[in-house]
Amino acid sequence: MSSQLTITGLTGVPLVKAGDDLAAIALAAYAATGLAPADGDVLVIAQKIVSKAEDRMVDVATVEPSAQAIALAVEVDKDPRLVQVILSESRRIVRHRPNLMIAEHRLGYVMANAGIDHSNVAPGDGTERVLLLPVDPDGSAENLRRQLAEACGKRIAIIISDSFGRPFRRGTVGIALGAAGLPSVIDWRGHPDLFGRKLEVTETGFADEIAAAASLVQGQADEGTPIVLVRGLAWSAPDAPGAALVRPAEHDLFR
Amino acid sequence: MSSQLTITGLTGVPLVKAGDDLAAIALAAYAATGLAPADGDVLVIAQKIVSKAEDRMVDVATVEPSAQAIALAVEVDKDPRLVQVILSESRRIVRHRPNLMIAEHRLGYVMANAGIDHSNVAPGDGTERVLLLPVDPDGSAENLRRQLAEACGKRIAIIISDSFGRPFRRGTVGIALGAAGLPSVIDWRGHPDLFGRKLEVTETGFADEIAAAASLVQGQADEGTPIVLVRGLAWSAPDAPGAALVRPAEHDLFR
Repeated sequence: MSSQLTITGLTGVPLVKAGDDLAAIALAAYAATGLAPADGDVLVIAQKIVSKAEDRMVDVATVEPSAQAIALAVEVDKDPRLVQVILSESRRIVRHRPNLMIAEHRLGYVMANAGIDHSNVAPGDGTERVLLLPVDPDGSAENLRRQLAEACGKRIAIIISDSFGRPFRRGTVGIALGAAGLPSVIDWRGHPDLFGRKLEVTETGFADEIAAAASLVQGQADEGTPIVLVRGLAWSAPDAPGAALVRPAEHDLFR
Repeated sequence: MSSQLTITGLTGVPLVKAGDDLAAIALAAYAATGLAPADGDVLVIAQKIVSKAEDRMVDVATVEPSAQAIALAVEVDKDPRLVQVILSESRRIVRHRPNLMIAEHRLGYVMANAGIDHSNVAPGDGTERVLLLPVDPDGSAENLRRQLAEACGKRIAIIISDSFGRPFRRGTVGIALGAAGLPSVIDWRGHPDLFGRKLEVTETGFADEIAAAASLVQGQADEGTPIVLVRGLAWSAPDAPGAALVRPAEHDLFR
């Protein structure tokens, strides 16, 4: 068990553009913050800069909405072209009402607007640009983990984080879309409690808790701190990707 | 925005018994950890020790199950007396299946077993004891906040934390049942993003994110670290209790 963590927002991260090298940006941010990479570090990277580096921008003005998107747009009171982008990223719409679409993203995440985001996207010249999630957040995390290991020789785990709303509770919280080099989920079955009784909590959402912690430093109002270093975590469970955090639909009582 | 947080499990917390003074225990734990209380500290206290101090133990062997509890017990494959305790703590059962009951607790939390817990409860002599949630977690947090302020003169915010499962995602995460001295929910409406556009995320679950962060240090397998100090948080939003995190049923698409 970890007994002390430090959570540090790395400074010196530039505005990220398509094609940027996030491993180089992360290493420069370590240096700008006055820190050296160390084994066991966890870097929590905001989804937004991963999507920007991977050029996941779509100009809504170029989208042709389907009949389904046009009909749904009336119900949710959104631009039919934006609704089309959301549908294209989704397996299905789980719930909707005016001004709210909760989609099951093609990767299984149940989230508002299939993760499509307007904010912190630089306005274009007459274009209306939105940002999609990375194509494969676990793959992006693994690439970054490997590039960092090659560049600095340290074992650095990566979480690609986003903010999700949730049923039953107000407010968004940080979650892990993708992860590499750590267990996203930790199985506690078989661990005895203080009195030797089998634990009732069998799984913890380790990477989601790390992403929530990092969110306290990342903030919402700008992207000045999209890379957060979490230092001091210890774990013994095997690595599992962010996909392990998606509850399979057949085990879900609320989908 | 906070730029660096430290999250420290306080040492020297004894096994808590009914009637124990948690403010005195917390101050002794600061000292045992070699730290002095400071303005702006947030203490995250595991629900379990609050419930124990408040003597929220029930001996299941003394409970008379209702006909409803007996019928439901067959469906969920649990002891009808335990089902009765869960029903007594709940407004209603939201979902159930064998070995799982998701209840709307009388305080509105939607959670497994209405928060009733077997683990880390010392086995009695032939009794079968379980632990209920505190009667009023926000009130417990506020009492503790006030007692600490009186004892040491510092502004210390309090979160009473638990671990919740959630729809759509595997693994439990730390959440705030009760809170005092900080904003459980922060409203970001009106804050511009980097490019002056209105933010789409309007509320963050600040106290839930803090509880999730503390959970990384609290652990699951024992109650050795039930008090966690989070230092370095900054906020300007007004205080709001843990109850503010409960989404009203009429705004909930999944209940």
